[in-house]
Order: sequence, then structure tokens, then C-alpha cells
Amino acid sequence: MDFDKVKKIINEFSAERDWDKFHTPKNLVMAVSSEVGELADIFQWLDANESKIENISEKDLSKAKEEIADILIYLIRLSEKLNIDLEEAVLSKIKLNNKKYPVNISKGNSTKYNRRDE
Amino acid sequence: MDFDKVKKIINEFSAERDWDKFHTPKNLVMAVSSEVGELADIFQWLDANESKIENISEKDLSKAKEEIADILIYLIRLSEKLNIDLEEAVLSKIKLNNKKYPVNISKGNSTKYNRRDE
Amino acid sequence: MDFDKVKKIINEFSAERDWDKFHTPKNLVMAVSSEVGELADIFQWLDANESKIENISEKDLSKAKEEIADILIYLIRLSEKLNIDLEEAVLSKIKLNNKKYPVNISKGNSTKYNRRDE
Amino acid sequence: MDFDKVKKIINEFSAERDWDKFHTPKNLVMAVSSEVGELADIFQWLDANESKIENISEKDLSKAKEEIADILIYLIRLSEKLNIDLEEAVLSKIKLNNKKYPVNISKGNSTKYNRRDE
Repeated sequence: MDFDKVKKIINEFSAERDWDKFHTPKNLVMAVSSEVGELADIFQWLDANESKIENISEKDLSKAKEEIADILIYLIRLSEKLNIDLEEAVLSKIKLNNKKYPVNISKGNSTKYNRRDE
Repeated sequence: MDFDKVKKIINEFSAERDWDKFHTPKNLVMAVSSEVGELADIFQWLDANESKIENISEKDLSKAKEEIADILIYLIRLSEKLNIDLEEAVLSKIKLNNKKYPVNISKGNSTKYNRRDE
Repeated sequence: MDFDKVKKIINEFSAERDWDKFHTPKNLVMAVSSEVGELADIFQWLDANESKIENISEKDLSKAKEEIADILIYLIRLSEKLNIDLEEAVLSKIKLNNKKYPVNISKGNSTKYNRRDE
Repeated sequence: MDFDKVKKIINEFSAERDWDKFHTPKNLVMAVSSEVGELADIFQWLDANESKIENISEKDLSKAKEEIADILIYLIRLSEKLNIDLEEAVLSKIKLNNKKYPVNISKGNSTKYNRRDE
């Protein structure tokens, strides 16, 4: 992904429509929530197997692609408004997750770090 | 963002923990929902102004950065499991949005395309 | 459920804490999103069978109970702030759903009404 | 709200359509997420004032009423599938919140209990 190109296109799209005034961080978080709801709508009644690439219908896959794009678009906008460098954010988070989920404890085990001792 | 590097690191993290078995598209969609909920938690009681970069607290910003990273990590995993090229998905969606939201109609106006005639 | 009693208790809880000022409809919608994210967190890695009452762990069930309560609490607050009568809202919606999902078309079939012709 | 009547109607609606097979707790949680996303969609670009009962448009209010009903319908289904008594769940949660948010600490202050010492 040519991330800078994508970011530039997204920003131009908003600028042309004078949508910056709507794009407060709070509103963008709600926009992400809304798009994630649309993604959940596609998958809600599918079982795990039906959701896989080899079984999902063309229609559902194509709809999922659109919703995933929408989420990413709003996430990129949000990260810009909050001066967050997405690459740095992901790499820091992975580093943190490496501590929270050491391989010897977490192998084959999805228990969340803060519910291990419950 | 060096997207391929990030993707490789995310995949290795899961592979080392044998987490692929949990990462069905359905489950990953729920994981995205869950992380978006944590993001909403940070912003729910802030007003629009308080949510802005010049006003948000260090703690909230740092927490938001983590949640945005988590969302992106699961979104990248999901797009892989569904063979979705994120750059292509975003560019196609922007093209579609250009039709749904022509500048002359949408300038300064956030009305959703499918609610314009209501 | 003695709905009026529950509503009264919820309202008193907020009034005592002077939380009305935070409870705009917009903020309450985000609060619902946040709690739903916590509910999704519990179920994200469970498969359909593991999520059932006969299989779910005591801990997950007890956590789910708390999150469901939180969602309902915020939903009741929201409906109050918007003067929505919840019983009337549910009965109207069921009536609408009866039209959208006639038994002869929808029996054993979860297809959403607006995606039937796709 | 005549809660038992509402519950009976909701259950009959599902039974007639043979939808019980779709209504695993996991799927119902996703259905709640999806409906909450639709609710967020209505409020995402409104500011706090615009979201209030005295300012919100008839259309948005009527759409919000439908989405709130959908959330409640799925929440009632979910609580049934998990044998959760909603009244008892809410009253227990309020009791817990009374401890987490004592009036003297929380008055006029929305800080989440687990982020007070951060």
C-alpha cells in the first residue's frame, strides 16, 4: 500500500467537500463505530466457516471490502486529526502485546492478559 | 507507513502464538467491534472541542493511539483472511464515494447519500 | 421486569452524581457503543457452541450479564432523553418487521429484507 | 412497559420464522453491534446540541426510535438465551456502580472508576 498516496487522496476528498468541520475526533470515532456496525451486519448470521474466503458469497465479500475500506478511511482521518503516526502506533502496540502475551503463555490460547488471573 | 513490513510483523506475531485458528473473518470482525468500543469509551463524555488534539489529555491521546493501533491490526488481519488488497479497496471506495457525494451536492453538507430524499 | 421502578433507580443514580450534563443523546449513543464493545470482547474468540448457556464459563456469563445491564441502562437513559416510549417503540418495530419479513419468505432464512434482490 | 408481553411477542416472531437456529449468543451479540452501528450513523455528524430532543429532526428521531427498538429486541433475545433476568441484572449493576462511583467522588465528574489513578 502506498500509504502517503492514499492519505493524500482521502484528505483531498474531504477538503473538496468542506467536510473538515464535521471531522472532529469525536465524530470520526462515531463514524468508525457506524462503519464497523455495517461490517458486523454482513457477518452476524454466518457461522465461522461460512465467513471464510472459500465459502463467503461474492456479494458479502464485496460488501465487506467496502466496509473495511470505510473503516480504514475514517481511521486514517482520525489518526491525522490526532497527529498519530499509524506505523509507529502499530509497531509500539505490537511491542506492548509482546509483553502482554508472551509466547510461552499465549501459545494456542486467546485469554486476554487482564483476565488471566480471574 | 511501510505497509508490507507492518503486515509481516503482525502475521509473525499471530503465527508464533498459534492464533490463526481464532482468526476467522467472523471472529476478527468481532475483535474490531470490541476495539472500536474501547475507542468510543475514551471519547464518550468529551465534547467535540475536548476531543481535539489541542485539548485532549496526554492520557486519552495515548490510550486512543493504542486502540487505533488495535483496530488497524485486526483490520489488516481481516483483509488478509479475505484476500482484500487494502489500497485497492480504499481507492475503489473513494471512487464510489465520488459518485455518491458529488462536490456540488455535498459541499459543506454531511447528509448521507441514501437519506437525501427522505 | 418492573420497568418504572428500574427507570426511577437509574435516573436517581444519575441525578445524585449530577451526570445529566454528560447525558446528551450523542454521548449516550457513544456510551452504548462502548458497552457493546465490551460485550463483543467476551464473545469474540468463542465459537457459536461455546457461547451457549450450557457451555459458557461462569466468568464469561457473569461478565456478559454486567455488560448487558450497562447497555440497557444507557438505552433507557437515551430513550428518556429522546422521549421514546420503549414498549411502543418495540411493538411498532415488530409490526414493521412483520411486513419486512413475512413468514412465507423468511422462514428459516436470515436474509435481510434490503438484500433479498441483490 | 409490560415486559413479559413484549418478550412473548418477540419470541413468537422468531419462532414463527424458525430463526432460533441463528440466535446463538455469539450471533446475537453481533446483531446488537450491528444495530448500535446504525444508531451511531444517525448521530455521528450531529453536535451535542443538535442531538437533543428539542433540536433533532423528525426523521432522525424516528430512525433513532427504530434502532433503539432493534437493540432492545436483540438484547431481550440475548438475555433469554443466556438465562439472564434483565431486572435483576440492572439492579445488581446499579449496586456495583454505587460502589465504583461513590457520590462524593463522582459528583459532576465522569471519570471512569478504573482510570481515576492514572
